[in-house]
Amino acid sequence: MSHILETFFKPKTIAVVGASKNTTKIGHAALKNILISDYECKIYPINPKEKEILGVKCYKKVTQVPGHIDLVIVSVPAKIVPQIMRDCTQKKVKNVIIISSGFSEVGNQELEDELKTIIEKSNMRVLGPNVMGYKNASDGLDASFVYGRAREGNLSLISQSGALGIGMIHLANHEFVGISKIIGVGNKIDIDDDDLIDYFAQDPDTKVVGLYIEAVKDGRKFMNSIKKCKKPVLVVKAGKSKAGARATASHTGSMAGSDKIYDAAIKQAGGIRCRDIVELFDRARALAGQPPAQGNRIGIITNGGGIGILLTDACEENGLVVPKLSSKTYKKIDKILPDIVKPNNPIDLTGDAGFYRYEASTRALLEDPNIDGIIVASVHGGYARPVEFTGAILKMIRERKLHEEFKKPILAAWVGGKEFEDLVWDLKSAGVPIYPSSWRIARSMMALYLEGQRLKREKGDI
Amino acid sequence: MSHILETFFKPKTIAVVGASKNTTKIGHAALKNILISDYECKIYPINPKEKEILGVKCYKKVTQVPGHIDLVIVSVPAKIVPQIMRDCTQKKVKNVIIISSGFSEVGNQELEDELKTIIEKSNMRVLGPNVMGYKNASDGLDASFVYGRAREGNLSLISQSGALGIGMIHLANHEFVGISKIIGVGNKIDIDDDDLIDYFAQDPDTKVVGLYIEAVKDGRKFMNSIKKCKKPVLVVKAGKSKAGARATASHTGSMAGSDKIYDAAIKQAGGIRCRDIVELFDRARALAGQPPAQGNRIGIITNGGGIGILLTDACEENGLVVPKLSSKTYKKIDKILPDIVKPNNPIDLTGDAGFYRYEASTRALLEDPNIDGIIVASVHGGYARPVEFTGAILKMIRERKLHEEFKKPILAAWVGGKEFEDLVWDLKSAGVPIYPSSWRIARSMMALYLEGQRLKREKGDI
Repeated sequence: MSHILETFFKPKTIAVVGASKNTTKIGHAALKNILISDYECKIYPINPKEKEILGVKCYKKVTQVPGHIDLVIVSVPAKIVPQIMRDCTQKKVKNVIIISSGFSEVGNQELEDELKTIIEKSNMRVLGPNVMGYKNASDGLDASFVYGRAREGNLSLISQSGALGIGMIHLANHEFVGISKIIGVGNKIDIDDDDLIDYFAQDPDTKVVGLYIEAVKDGRKFMNSIKKCKKPVLVVKAGKSKAGARATASHTGSMAGSDKIYDAAIKQAGGIRCRDIVELFDRARALAGQPPAQGNRIGIITNGGGIGILLTDACEENGLVVPKLSSKTYKKIDKILPDIVKPNNPIDLTGDAGFYRYEASTRALLEDPNIDGIIVASVHGGYARPVEFTGAILKMIRERKLHEEFKKPILAAWVGGKEFEDLVWDLKSAGVPIYPSSWRIARSMMALYLEGQRLKREKGDI
Repeated sequence: MSHILETFFKPKTIAVVGASKNTTKIGHAALKNILISDYECKIYPINPKEKEILGVKCYKKVTQVPGHIDLVIVSVPAKIVPQIMRDCTQKKVKNVIIISSGFSEVGNQELEDELKTIIEKSNMRVLGPNVMGYKNASDGLDASFVYGRAREGNLSLISQSGALGIGMIHLANHEFVGISKIIGVGNKIDIDDDDLIDYFAQDPDTKVVGLYIEAVKDGRKFMNSIKKCKKPVLVVKAGKSKAGARATASHTGSMAGSDKIYDAAIKQAGGIRCRDIVELFDRARALAGQPPAQGNRIGIITNGGGIGILLTDACEENGLVVPKLSSKTYKKIDKILPDIVKPNNPIDLTGDAGFYRYEASTRALLEDPNIDGIIVASVHGGYARPVEFTGAILKMIRERKLHEEFKKPILAAWVGGKEFEDLVWDLKSAGVPIYPSSWRIARSMMALYLEGQRLKREKGDI
């Protein structure tokens, strides 16, 4: 049996209540986003004053639409919303998104309670009110009023903050993070974080779940949904500090609760807490593109001593270990190095390292049972040719995919400029995250290790 | 009297020993970099086998060059270097850069000691061996063999790692960090970090000094030079962790020493330690473009509640404080906000905030004696127009520069995409750093606070 939210994310018929010819209205943007979606469905604009909008036949009421409706998007003034919801109940609509604001978030609790009563008596699932809707990049459907497209990928994002959710779409594109679905939860009158985590847990297009939360309504449900989810769940929980908690109370009207309790509960449920949105994206790229690390022993390959030491420091300061090389691996790498240097971990391939040294050393670490994760770095020095560095990594990934024999993550690091950025496009596209900062890469590798630990606990191995 | 290294960084005559017609030789690149420099000086290629190189008359030996020589750049095989140095002594050359490698870094201590003996008997100042040289972006001179130009600015960088130093030039451009001088110190046979810090301390083009170090030879001299420097000194000290220290020993052959001792000494000398190169650049942008913060009380302005809370958390987790607004400031801001929200700190101007609200709230915080630093943030939400956000900040900066009345730093934060990046170009150009991550901005503001504290200690105020 398919998940109850399947028709919510993949509706065959959508009605937009409050659809408008006025291009400044949210109801116009919401309708247009569906129209321009690369998605097959029936669309019904609802507006008592219009015959057609954007070339599509318009209906006066939801109840007049022929056939059943999978999803209704509501963008009308708050006080009219209850009547629309009653129409939806009568029409036996399956899912509703209430974009309209003007409810509990501005102190109008009574009006929100009225909606609750209507919903409780129905079988509808309702998102909002006070939400942007969602973008489903995997299926090509944009059921939001927000301008802009998300790059398709495997991270599904839930945002408690509307504005931040919108900003995240653009930031994700900028950071080369692919999105499956991104959704705002708004006032959470019905559909809550735990419902969405449950859905994403079984959604084949979602590999990683990401959350921005300020407060949760039902802590037990929330933590259980994370616990049940067999995929990595990344959590940015805002309101950590005292002043942050004060601001949270002011923003969503909810108590943030003790941060320590949240922290322990998220950890116990197997979630991975992130410092901010950029860190969530850094880690999502790693978790979506690479296998988890089976342990915390990291091998580092560079073409410069300095960056190797910085990466080592960052790893060790974030709970990872950079062990000495085994004698077997030492011998393998000693063969390919110039006489003036000896293998160490970090392995300094020296400044003139090209494809061959990068390939051979990466392979040696992939074959070493004492290494759980690999960081391959390139400094844009005098002799570095980025394409030899990226080529070696890509070859290792390709081989590994052919044989499926090495379940070890590879992350890349660089110190260079725009020229370099352009050259590593193929690396990013192949799912190998690359970071300019030793701290960012170490904290991403740490997430791969935490996910590896979670999977071991799940299997009962630890 | 001008600093002893003045002719080193601004030579009127330069000879390149080992200049070559062979485009694959370092001696070719070194000569070409001077020739293509936007810098007025006499250039003498030295090569016994050539009559001219790249159109410039060639000499057989340094001693045959007419007139005095301010700077000799040496790029010949290691074993010939002592003879060249004797020639330089005879010619009474003022400064030498030995690019050549093959000395103590590969275990050839004897040859390096031979150089030392020659130098000790002379009045020459010598950089290297085993260095890239330097790029002096302020004066337009490139006295290195490294390809690429640095964006002109006010950060002077000293790198103990050659490859990393080169990579940093490209990364600095990419991160919009302006460079005054960037220099590698290599084996430090004569010119050491402390000499360079002393020079940059009195150099009018340098506002911020940045260091990448693995080990220092004379800890007392090093710390004293930082202490004497009346400018912020940012230090990335690698080899912090045990594995990092092991790698350091292998890289430069020197002991890293106890990290705790380094940490305490750097702090006591007034240096600001950074986690990695990206953090050094983040902070350099802030320190070069903004005044230091007189205290740690931060005011935050946003157009979205979520990002405000994240910024608050990041500030408080990094030793800053986000205090409640004074009643005076509260009243000022209450006037400009829509009725549905009340002023708080972070101040949420709400999603439709434009130029006016950003300008008025920034001005109110500039005028508030209880606020020491300001963070202005924009989330690329449905209604945000980046140019209104940046315009407001730029107006405040412009006014402040006209009147010089508010000595308070302003940093900017954004959550958005490439489109946004392009729009904030003018902000970056005006010296207002802008960061996509709440942690990066908080850690940069922290550096402005630490610099403010250092200045207060210097004045005896604390």
